[in-house]
Amino acid sequence: MAQSKFEYTRKFEVEDKLLPNSWIVVRIDGKGFHKFSDTHGFSKPNEKPALDLMNKCACCVMNDFNEIILSYGQSDEYSFVFRPDTGVYSRRSSKIVTNISSLFASSYVFHWKEFFPEKDLIYPPAFDGRAVLYPTVKNLRDYLSWRQADCHINNLYNTVFWTLVNKGGMTNNAAQERLKGTLSGDKNEILFSEFGINYNKESMQYRKGTTIIKKKVEIPSENGAGGTKLRTKTFQLDCDIIGDEFWNENPHLVEAFKET
Amino acid sequence: MAQSKFEYTRKFEVEDKLLPNSWIVVRIDGKGFHKFSDTHGFSKPNEKPALDLMNKCACCVMNDFNEIILSYGQSDEYSFVFRPDTGVYSRRSSKIVTNISSLFASSYVFHWKEFFPEKDLIYPPAFDGRAVLYPTVKNLRDYLSWRQADCHINNLYNTVFWTLVNKGGMTNNAAQERLKGTLSGDKNEILFSEFGINYNKESMQYRKGTTIIKKKVEIPSENGAGGTKLRTKTFQLDCDIIGDEFWNENPHLVEAFKET
Amino acid sequence: MAQSKFEYTRKFEVEDKLLPNSWIVVRIDGKGFHKFSDTHGFSKPNEKPALDLMNKCACCVMNDFNEIILSYGQSDEYSFVFRPDTGVYSRRSSKIVTNISSLFASSYVFHWKEFFPEKDLIYPPAFDGRAVLYPTVKNLRDYLSWRQADCHINNLYNTVFWTLVNKGGMTNNAAQERLKGTLSGDKNEILFSEFGINYNKESMQYRKGTTIIKKKVEIPSENGAGGTKLRTKTFQLDCDIIGDEFWNENPHLVEAFKET
Amino acid sequence: MAQSKFEYTRKFEVEDKLLPNSWIVVRIDGKGFHKFSDTHGFSKPNEKPALDLMNKCACCVMNDFNEIILSYGQSDEYSFVFRPDTGVYSRRSSKIVTNISSLFASSYVFHWKEFFPEKDLIYPPAFDGRAVLYPTVKNLRDYLSWRQADCHINNLYNTVFWTLVNKGGMTNNAAQERLKGTLSGDKNEILFSEFGINYNKESMQYRKGTTIIKKKVEIPSENGAGGTKLRTKTFQLDCDIIGDEFWNENPHLVEAFKET
Repeated sequence: MAQSKFEYTRKFEVEDKLLPNSWIVVRIDGKGFHKFSDTHGFSKPNEKPALDLMNKCACCVMNDFNEIILSYGQSDEYSFVFRPDTGVYSRRSSKIVTNISSLFASSYVFHWKEFFPEKDLIYPPAFDGRAVLYPTVKNLRDYLSWRQADCHINNLYNTVFWTLVNKGGMTNNAAQERLKGTLSGDKNEILFSEFGINYNKESMQYRKGTTIIKKKVEIPSENGAGGTKLRTKTFQLDCDIIGDEFWNENPHLVEAFKET
Repeated sequence: MAQSKFEYTRKFEVEDKLLPNSWIVVRIDGKGFHKFSDTHGFSKPNEKPALDLMNKCACCVMNDFNEIILSYGQSDEYSFVFRPDTGVYSRRSSKIVTNISSLFASSYVFHWKEFFPEKDLIYPPAFDGRAVLYPTVKNLRDYLSWRQADCHINNLYNTVFWTLVNKGGMTNNAAQERLKGTLSGDKNEILFSEFGINYNKESMQYRKGTTIIKKKVEIPSENGAGGTKLRTKTFQLDCDIIGDEFWNENPHLVEAFKET
Repeated sequence: MAQSKFEYTRKFEVEDKLLPNSWIVVRIDGKGFHKFSDTHGFSKPNEKPALDLMNKCACCVMNDFNEIILSYGQSDEYSFVFRPDTGVYSRRSSKIVTNISSLFASSYVFHWKEFFPEKDLIYPPAFDGRAVLYPTVKNLRDYLSWRQADCHINNLYNTVFWTLVNKGGMTNNAAQERLKGTLSGDKNEILFSEFGINYNKESMQYRKGTTIIKKKVEIPSENGAGGTKLRTKTFQLDCDIIGDEFWNENPHLVEAFKET
Repeated sequence: MAQSKFEYTRKFEVEDKLLPNSWIVVRIDGKGFHKFSDTHGFSKPNEKPALDLMNKCACCVMNDFNEIILSYGQSDEYSFVFRPDTGVYSRRSSKIVTNISSLFASSYVFHWKEFFPEKDLIYPPAFDGRAVLYPTVKNLRDYLSWRQADCHINNLYNTVFWTLVNKGGMTNNAAQERLKGTLSGDKNEILFSEFGINYNKESMQYRKGTTIIKKKVEIPSENGAGGTKLRTKTFQLDCDIIGDEFWNENPHLVEAFKET
């Protein structure tokens, strides 16, 4: 069987290497997660085990790709930030995004039972993915701020909406009508004055999403001599990443890659 | 939280629409499946339940994407052929490949137990994916021939290699040395004269891989009036797809898309 | 001077190879040709020497790139059609389009005096260019039909507009108002009933644009023995290329590349 | 003529926007300039009027594209550096490179006579072009250093080669043999000890290429009141741009675009 006469078809593949020396962000999004949430009876506005499972899958991805310096997730999406000098798969875009989205999806099924011991997975989910380049630390931080601001806006909306429905006895349509045109302040006010809920006391995980970073920490060395050694540990945070504080506290994330 | 001032980062995403009116082939490949096979104790040269599970996952993908007209799989890879006029996800390349590779991977975990009732999945697999365009039916058929010829070459090699090791008592190195430089005919001869194995009687599934197509078939209609109706059914085949016979028998696959 | 330590910057170049086995069309467009026409006092609606100069430049391009099988030009644009199997510059898109647009532009200046012996070129023009892929003959013909239909629509409009202005004594604004919302039939009628002009008798070159093809013709051989030999000649046509006639008369252009 | 039914072919064009916030370098190269130089009898190793003409064309390009902050040329190539925030043609790559290469080529013909008053242009030249992205100032400076180091290496080689041929009476082949494997120092030594030529006293223009920048300078204001005003002027330099000195003296070129 003359393989060689067919092999020319390999030439139809196109090279899709990502520009060197730029931050690569891979963002994955759950496909049809509205329906997925309904089918699996997720609580509204947030199903904590589902968010924790997302975080678990993100950790699996970070474990496999050690050039990811930070991941940020909220709702059914996750962003993975690769060092600008990463050489993973020679920076081939489709290779990177498919490996990450497929590992994320298979991990989701694999770890489901740890988070939903009482609930069967009814069908396996898919996640789409894309790779985006950011040339500077400022662009990268603005991207992450965009996602965290999006988390805030959606979570505030969903919190009020489901409070109106679940506690206020409104229909979905009525709640939607009620919220049309309201600003952040209005929504906070509805929660507080009508339901006694202080939005700022809601769970940080819901309001801020989850940020996962690696950090070198000192641990006692095992030789019994009493010294310490450095070990890379993964930290899961639910803090603000828009302001400077987080970045000042974790200068190792981006400082080395700043232009000087 | 002024989302708008960060939203400019969305502009860094690039459009990756695939050329209209061309066949789109998405091929996925298992990541590190040598190790995956070893870890899970797969038989050599072929672990039938693993191949069947691959086929099951391909069916799941074809179910979700009804513009796939044919899929072809062998070993740890699968190719999905979309109609040239498909409009799926506006033909955005990364959207298509990530959805397919992640659904394939999550289905793999989801359906594992049906094929390996006695064996636990030790870790979730990843699959990389790529989209390739083929302008003509000839190019498309040559692509599929390339993959099936590759299946033949690898399976023949692996069959002899593992026969030498498992039945011939050779070490891996010795078997490898023995096969260096041999042609197809030599390999067939080794199998036949030394082990009484007629390669052409080996399972078609191993020698040809698996081709999945959809076909309209007549089924009795349910109203009891004795008539029939057309229903689309999925067929799993292990036939040759290099020659013309398969294509002549299934003209609906490509004829409508040929230039006239 | 250690060149090597800077050479890594070459890696930032991206590969931009065009899909194999597809028609490559390179279309160039004059940059700011409204202003260019005004500055050089071109007649309205058509300045024949300027169109002839465009055709001359197209011939220069076709001379340099023998895999161009057909060129079509109108107004300040020209389209060059490469055979689907062309290997020019390894099908690198930017290499192809820049070579063609720069050669076209430099030829424009070089040959200016042949077409405008009395008129000085006041400044050198630029032409932008792009490469577009068409997988099938039908797509390619539809592309060319699109350009020729565009030529018709613009030329009819411009012919009526400038007749209203130049012969009808209208201001530009009044002519524009008069034509707002008119269909082809209306425009033909204005020309005919008000100015006695039969649009269909206007120059084919203006109404149809110019199509340049190569054709093998028999010429007497030079050895005096009375035989003939084949020689490739360039033909400049101003015929319709939307209907089948042109293509039936010139089957050599595309037949060899049709799928069978 | 139903244009609309053909217009779908426009959809086959692909978007090719360049990543935002990155330096865009457009480099053009003369096509077949060996032959072009020979045909036009250019002196070896350098034909000053030809280099000056290249510089003139670069100035024309910089005049038309005011977001180019620096151009660097040597031999038959020129690099144009756009500000990272340039919005020219919505950053469409092919639009940018074709406009620049075609304007450069047409200017070359247009201005030829100013530099070669006694010599006719025999045929019009073409220039290919490409756009390359550089995310950081360091990458950009390294790119320019790469080109200037290339200039040095080629010019030193050519200087010795043509001295051996023209003054040493060697054949081309003999000169080539003589230089095989020699280092910079060896070449300098040949020039100095055998021909009394100090390479470092050769023209800066030949050794360093030409750098063109814009700078705001104070000029006397025209109102007669004795004040001054700022005016942008173009400067043509033949200095080193690899070291820091040039960049320290012209901080306006890149400082504003550095990450802070």
